[in-house]
Amino acid sequence: MINVTIWNEFLNEKLNDEAKQIYPDGIHKALADGLAGEGFAIRTATLRDDAEHGLGEEVLNSTDVLLWWGHKAHDQVSDEVTARVVKRVQEGMGLIVLHSGHFSKPFKALMGTSCDLKWRVAGEQEIIWSVNPSHPIAEGIDAKILLKQEEMYGEFFDIPAPDELVFVSNFEGGEVFRTGCTFRRGSGKIFYFRPGHETYPTYYQPDILKVIANSIRWTSPTSINKPIYGRSEPVRPLGGVLV
Amino acid sequence: MINVTIWNEFLNEKLNDEAKQIYPDGIHKALADGLAGEGFAIRTATLRDDAEHGLGEEVLNSTDVLLWWGHKAHDQVSDEVTARVVKRVQEGMGLIVLHSGHFSKPFKALMGTSCDLKWRVAGEQEIIWSVNPSHPIAEGIDAKILLKQEEMYGEFFDIPAPDELVFVSNFEGGEVFRTGCTFRRGSGKIFYFRPGHETYPTYYQPDILKVIANSIRWTSPTSINKPIYGRSEPVRPLGGVLV
Amino acid sequence: MINVTIWNEFLNEKLNDEAKQIYPDGIHKALADGLAGEGFAIRTATLRDDAEHGLGEEVLNSTDVLLWWGHKAHDQVSDEVTARVVKRVQEGMGLIVLHSGHFSKPFKALMGTSCDLKWRVAGEQEIIWSVNPSHPIAEGIDAKILLKQEEMYGEFFDIPAPDELVFVSNFEGGEVFRTGCTFRRGSGKIFYFRPGHETYPTYYQPDILKVIANSIRWTSPTSINKPIYGRSEPVRPLGGVLV
Amino acid sequence: MINVTIWNEFLNEKLNDEAKQIYPDGIHKALADGLAGEGFAIRTATLRDDAEHGLGEEVLNSTDVLLWWGHKAHDQVSDEVTARVVKRVQEGMGLIVLHSGHFSKPFKALMGTSCDLKWRVAGEQEIIWSVNPSHPIAEGIDAKILLKQEEMYGEFFDIPAPDELVFVSNFEGGEVFRTGCTFRRGSGKIFYFRPGHETYPTYYQPDILKVIANSIRWTSPTSINKPIYGRSEPVRPLGGVLV
Repeated sequence: MINVTIWNEFLNEKLNDEAKQIYPDGIHKALADGLAGEGFAIRTATLRDDAEHGLGEEVLNSTDVLLWWGHKAHDQVSDEVTARVVKRVQEGMGLIVLHSGHFSKPFKALMGTSCDLKWRVAGEQEIIWSVNPSHPIAEGIDAKILLKQEEMYGEFFDIPAPDELVFVSNFEGGEVFRTGCTFRRGSGKIFYFRPGHETYPTYYQPDILKVIANSIRWTSPTSINKPIYGRSEPVRPLGGVLV
Repeated sequence: MINVTIWNEFLNEKLNDEAKQIYPDGIHKALADGLAGEGFAIRTATLRDDAEHGLGEEVLNSTDVLLWWGHKAHDQVSDEVTARVVKRVQEGMGLIVLHSGHFSKPFKALMGTSCDLKWRVAGEQEIIWSVNPSHPIAEGIDAKILLKQEEMYGEFFDIPAPDELVFVSNFEGGEVFRTGCTFRRGSGKIFYFRPGHETYPTYYQPDILKVIANSIRWTSPTSINKPIYGRSEPVRPLGGVLV
Repeated sequence: MINVTIWNEFLNEKLNDEAKQIYPDGIHKALADGLAGEGFAIRTATLRDDAEHGLGEEVLNSTDVLLWWGHKAHDQVSDEVTARVVKRVQEGMGLIVLHSGHFSKPFKALMGTSCDLKWRVAGEQEIIWSVNPSHPIAEGIDAKILLKQEEMYGEFFDIPAPDELVFVSNFEGGEVFRTGCTFRRGSGKIFYFRPGHETYPTYYQPDILKVIANSIRWTSPTSINKPIYGRSEPVRPLGGVLV
Repeated sequence: MINVTIWNEFLNEKLNDEAKQIYPDGIHKALADGLAGEGFAIRTATLRDDAEHGLGEEVLNSTDVLLWWGHKAHDQVSDEVTARVVKRVQEGMGLIVLHSGHFSKPFKALMGTSCDLKWRVAGEQEIIWSVNPSHPIAEGIDAKILLKQEEMYGEFFDIPAPDELVFVSNFEGGEVFRTGCTFRRGSGKIFYFRPGHETYPTYYQPDILKVIANSIRWTSPTSINKPIYGRSEPVRPLGGVLV
């Protein structure tokens, strides 16, 4: 069974009336409920849970896949917890970064870029298209996902070229966005998935939840052999080679 | 100096009144004129030029970069000329495939896929966004290229994942498309560029011509050492290795 | 359950004494036996089985993953069967190409390149290194696989840049090779895996069999939605856009 | 003209007799001399030059391509200078990281991984093979580069999958290494090139210098349009879309 921890900043849903109405118990709770039938072992954690934002060593060490939603308070995530998340990903933990988590400290540290983009909150339509039909993250998803209203994110999205591009979005106002992207860092797999502004009911939509469930399976750790580094003896005898 | 051959099927511009009005001397002539100031040595060739569609051995052997526009008569390109083009690309000739050339025999042979897609001719707006700002093909191009009216091409576009994705299009009707894609095959470089339906004046637009000029430079042959294949002597002495 | 068909040319093991001694019932039989405990439904087929090389429509349509080993008689595989295999891969069937299958007609058609390489049969040592520790195909494999004696394959290997590079080989004589490569074509996934010359007992080695079993799972079809192509209605109403 | 700054830690060549003998004026001076005929404007800078390691704002702002060699004292490079180098790369400056620079602060920050690897100093032979014959960085290079004696670096090399793999090394002791790798971060291009241990005369070898010169040209800034980020007006009018 895959051990999933859903981390949410959980500030907008307390401070913003629109967000509170849509996600009264927080985005983490809506995601946990929406994924309840998928057979994962799910925990949640939030920024203000404790001094470590609910991401103490014990929690992270027993997490196979971490979901991350943050927006207003990226800088309140401690450097220590950031470093711990990054290290766990490099060691094999899966990481799914949602929406405004693009600007979170762990994602920026793992990408090595600014992760900046264009944006607009105008209640416009988003259409997500699959460009990778054989990818497990797109499994069972129709050619497109329609979101009646979403925040716009537009290119240029300052990320490294993704290892695999799975979804691309069209916005009513004319922009495009690389919405579903995979990355590998160390022994860990990362999926960035764009949708989920706090004032729209995106995370209640079944096809969005299906993509997230697929990506949890895809990012879950597969390798059991840790890389070996450092000084190393030759596999073959040296010497006697004349160029 | 880069030797460029612009190949055009040149049927629509004779048979279709709209196309004839926009490109009275053919798309190849409009492209040759539009690229005239770029410092290339430019020739043109068309399907009905001769038994080899203007692409005899002498022409292809002295071509550094071949541009390809075709639409109605892909199946009239002979298998012999197709094989010759493919071989020249694998040996290092650059190839730029424009618009409906996605279904041409050489492109399909080089991709190994159906190269199929969605389409619609409805005079709608296309907005092309750069997703690779440091790529030489995007040099000097604004964040976006606006095309007032174009044919829609939509995903899923059945190509291998491009080596580099340079441009992505947004269409008014809601679709997206991987509009600027690079591929390497053998010693040759390929650029697929989506725009250019025969009933719209796309190839007179300066930013479109700039992309094509950039891509001619990028696909032009760089390597002077041909790969060596076949039976090969060891570089180091064998023997004496005990596992 | 994954339906696997192991296709083998099955000529060397009849004509060459060394090969016959190592694989008396053919490479296909050794592979089928070696994979017997993995929970797949396994069939075999060979070049001379029938007019369709054992790959009639019924067989291919009920195959999830096809393994391909060929060497001496690539040109005896009919164009019709080649086209059928290519089409099935593009529709979603997994394909695992082993060793000298690099020169098979289906692989060359799917790659769009010559698939040529350097080679040498000198009984030398090969060491295969994992360069992608989080990839499911490398799961459970040590940092390296040691093959006491193998045929050398050396770069430049004329393939498109693989979507993912999983393994790289070092040969005693000084060469390197991209030994484990993934590709996607259409809705299908492809894995090329280098080892397995007919005069060495490579396919009896447990770590080699483990890689093949992993790759069968990885290439097995995942997507259930076929891409839609052709003329397409707009998702959003057109008109009224002024640039 | 491309403005090149060669940065060298310049400690081994003062403290280690072998290194001092081979590079009496430092690796930076050997590289500057070796590249003198290439038409670049070359400056050098070293760790102890001044409080900013010779990389003050004025120097970096007028640098098109920065070369980086470091080994013993990565932690003595200040965080401020590291951040400045990273920012300049993201804005478009080319970066060429040589040999033990894999562990430098700027490279690790741009990769988002540990950049760890296996190593051994045993005077063994390295053979570098080109796996990307049409890449400008491999232009004019033979199929292989022979280094009589080098430090071994072995996989797993903990980097993100490179955007393009250009060279792979074979070591006498049995290892392989992804020796020439390109990456894009923001508007900047990066090339990692493995060879160049301080106790071997690698940087006097013409083919090694040729690769470095090629990579200076390839990483030099090409794009003149900076990406635009932040709140953005729609390109098309919103409203009236009913899903």
